Amino acid sequence: MSHFEEKTLHREEIYKGKVVELAVDQVLLPDGKRSTRELVFHPGAVAVLAVTKEGKFIFVEQFRKALERDLLEIPAGKLEPGEEPLTSAMRELEEETGYMADSWIFLSRFYTSPGFSNEVVHLFLAKGLKAGRHHLDDDEFVEVYELTEQEIFEEMARGRIADAKTILAVYHWALFQKKEGE
Amino acid sequence: MSHFEEKTLHREEIYKGKVVELAVDQVLLPDGKRSTRELVFHPGAVAVLAVTKEGKFIFVEQFRKALERDLLEIPAGKLEPGEEPLTSAMRELEEETGYMADSWIFLSRFYTSPGFSNEVVHLFLAKGLKAGRHHLDDDEFVEVYELTEQEIFEEMARGRIADAKTILAVYHWALFQKKEGE
Repeated sequence: MSHFEEKTLHREEIYKGKVVELAVDQVLLPDGKRSTRELVFHPGAVAVLAVTKEGKFIFVEQFRKALERDLLEIPAGKLEPGEEPLTSAMRELEEETGYMADSWIFLSRFYTSPGFSNEVVHLFLAKGLKAGRHHLDDDEFVEVYELTEQEIFEEMARGRIADAKTILAVYHWALFQKKEGE
Repeated sequence: MSHFEEKTLHREEIYKGKVVELAVDQVLLPDGKRSTRELVFHPGAVAVLAVTKEGKFIFVEQFRKALERDLLEIPAGKLEPGEEPLTSAMRELEEETGYMADSWIFLSRFYTSPGFSNEVVHLFLAKGLKAGRHHLDDDEFVEVYELTEQEIFEEMARGRIADAKTILAVYHWALFQKKEGE
């Protein structure tokens, strides 16, 4: 139990879309006052740090409408209803890049924007990759790259790699997985 | 220029709140087909990894309504209109924790959820801390902690620390700042 808990007095459901839902809650604060909270509900997502036998990492470049620009990210996608995160990670890696992996390791689970959203990302490491054919969703357009660790850090410095899940995944690998893999 | 660019054919503005705005765009895909994009616009945020002279890190625990639970995070807050990120970071650290810092270093800038939101976090390192009094916003209730590096990794394993900006900040420090600080 939290001693900071904010009880919902009233919820207004503003929007229910394909990806997100928006609600505005009237809440009772711990001091008895009231405030509002704008909440974006999301089904959750998976992300995959996929490493080739040569020690290169699979990246996808795609246009991000919210930013009006391309980003270079690790493969990722949202959870389908009732889908296990690992199943979803395997599906997304193959759909977006064509790669399948022999070995899957759960790395981390984190909230991306807890101030307004419940989106959670389940992060996996995929090793022993085999190339195949990708088969994207109708509205997905991505380009697949294989990057060395040095290239990844260069693209971070350049700002082409610039999203939290990707940076967190690369840092996680550099801190904890790198030595094991060598 | 992106060769994946999605042109906006029509934008429906669904909601404009205190923190977020929601819009749904009808877009023209690179292959000439159409799709919709649900977009959550956010003013951007700052986050501060603040280190005491004893090498402890300042954390705040607060209730996150979108998750219906408490999280232990580094101090953070959203940018006010026209505010410089560094000014905002100084303000948020003092408001939430009472601490002021002698030295500020820009660490990183990243998008938290590029799949649906333009939220960007500007991350700073604050050193040479002096304790003061905190003065929270009317609807903010936080508890301030000082944690050692070991305690941080324990709280990550326990799931009390579980948000991307905090984990990314701690990893960044462990990879790049730790040796300099010793």
